[in-house]
Amino acid sequence: VSGTVLVNGIMQDVIPVQDRGLLYGDGLFETIAIARGVPLLWDLHMRRLCRSCARLGIAVPDVDLLRADLQRMTGGREREVGKIVVTRGVGARGYAPSVDAVPTRIVSVSEWRPRAGAGEGVAVRFCRTRLGRNPALAGLKHLNRLEQVLARAELSPELAEGLMLNDLDEVVEGTMTNVFAVSGGELITPDLAECGVAGVLREFILENSPIVVREAPLARATLPAADEIFLTNSIIGVWPVSKLAERSVPVGPVTRRIQELVRDSHAAV
Amino acid sequence: VSGTVLVNGIMQDVIPVQDRGLLYGDGLFETIAIARGVPLLWDLHMRRLCRSCARLGIAVPDVDLLRADLQRMTGGREREVGKIVVTRGVGARGYAPSVDAVPTRIVSVSEWRPRAGAGEGVAVRFCRTRLGRNPALAGLKHLNRLEQVLARAELSPELAEGLMLNDLDEVVEGTMTNVFAVSGGELITPDLAECGVAGVLREFILENSPIVVREAPLARATLPAADEIFLTNSIIGVWPVSKLAERSVPVGPVTRRIQELVRDSHAAV
Repeated sequence: VSGTVLVNGIMQDVIPVQDRGLLYGDGLFETIAIARGVPLLWDLHMRRLCRSCARLGIAVPDVDLLRADLQRMTGGREREVGKIVVTRGVGARGYAPSVDAVPTRIVSVSEWRPRAGAGEGVAVRFCRTRLGRNPALAGLKHLNRLEQVLARAELSPELAEGLMLNDLDEVVEGTMTNVFAVSGGELITPDLAECGVAGVLREFILENSPIVVREAPLARATLPAADEIFLTNSIIGVWPVSKLAERSVPVGPVTRRIQELVRDSHAAV
Repeated sequence: VSGTVLVNGIMQDVIPVQDRGLLYGDGLFETIAIARGVPLLWDLHMRRLCRSCARLGIAVPDVDLLRADLQRMTGGREREVGKIVVTRGVGARGYAPSVDAVPTRIVSVSEWRPRAGAGEGVAVRFCRTRLGRNPALAGLKHLNRLEQVLARAELSPELAEGLMLNDLDEVVEGTMTNVFAVSGGELITPDLAECGVAGVLREFILENSPIVVREAPLARATLPAADEIFLTNSIIGVWPVSKLAERSVPVGPVTRRIQELVRDSHAAV
């Protein structure tokens, strides 16, 4: 695959082996839905990326430059998937980050691959692989993703997603999605103070939902009794959960309303 | 820095941006002391690497090939530092590892930079950044090292090392070393069932120490009262701790005996 990636604005498909993104996972990424050349939820993506860089002490990237890179790479198709990786850059040996490190930015756009039927509901189960808790890294979409890799490897291909728990038996997220549940008349999504990725679509829903969303710990034991469950992710949108482990879950009105909210916002682009 | 790295046996300094080592930290590494062309503790390094690959479901590398790569790169100097990185290789989009992924092996040798005076004792303090607990990743020297990067960034350059705690206020390790303490007549090193890197020199000491070593949780509160503390790492060897936070720690007979054990084993090469 040649000529499909921009590294620091230059068309190339490689990075130095001394890049700290490879050596330590010392960086962040964003995966962005693109509609006819326009990146969706761009401001939320950039807000998360810039805040995350600040938290890791990585120089905050020039957002206009990232946008220009993405613009160069898009083919303007109905739907594409953009990806931005920002690493701390090439560094000296050892964990200590140099204060003068120049971040590496990697921008690519790839084909959209729709997943058939997911809008009608997906089957999920709990993964055995748990998420470690660490407030220092919670919320960030960083490059340390071995937990997700191991969790995903547990799932047979016909399962759309797996739910991940922490060691307190709380549901935190899916391997690549955030989780929402309707329970006791309330719409709840796990708070991500100690682990999990604060997804951009989750953030959009928190800020725009006509239904109040409460961020709170979500005990595993309560989930099978939930009235509705749905999953969110910038690329896939909103997936109703129609089956949890062996139990059927109804796809209800709250899920449908949030699906509409997201569809309307994307259609407005 | 051209021509200093072998990637899959080919002299080059770059890897594809689609390598999962970069995208997810999906890989492992070994840092190896080399004495006049001979890698020290080679069997222990390879045992850890192969076991770790098996745990992550990465194809176990050909150890003879890794040794040959290292042999090509060494300059035969008195002391050098070898580094081997093994990633799951280039993969399709998404966390799911392909079963047919071909691992990437990256081998380099660099200059030895001795740290003056460390043999006489180093000053350390506790880092604020904690280690998350996750048995699925505990013990592995994987490429998800953001916790260490953040912890190391806290330390002023004159501090040789910082000690890292988990959320239970137990001492787990240094940012780049394992920890041993002599307390109540016993030699203790933290058990690494839930987090931490199982260092190769730690393993060597566990297997060869003339003094019994107990692997057990090490409460932070007990450390300031320890009779002796020392740190280990394949490259630096054994560092006595002479100062913990603001308190002096004596460099005692157990530390000296372990230093001799390691020195003798290296001299025997």
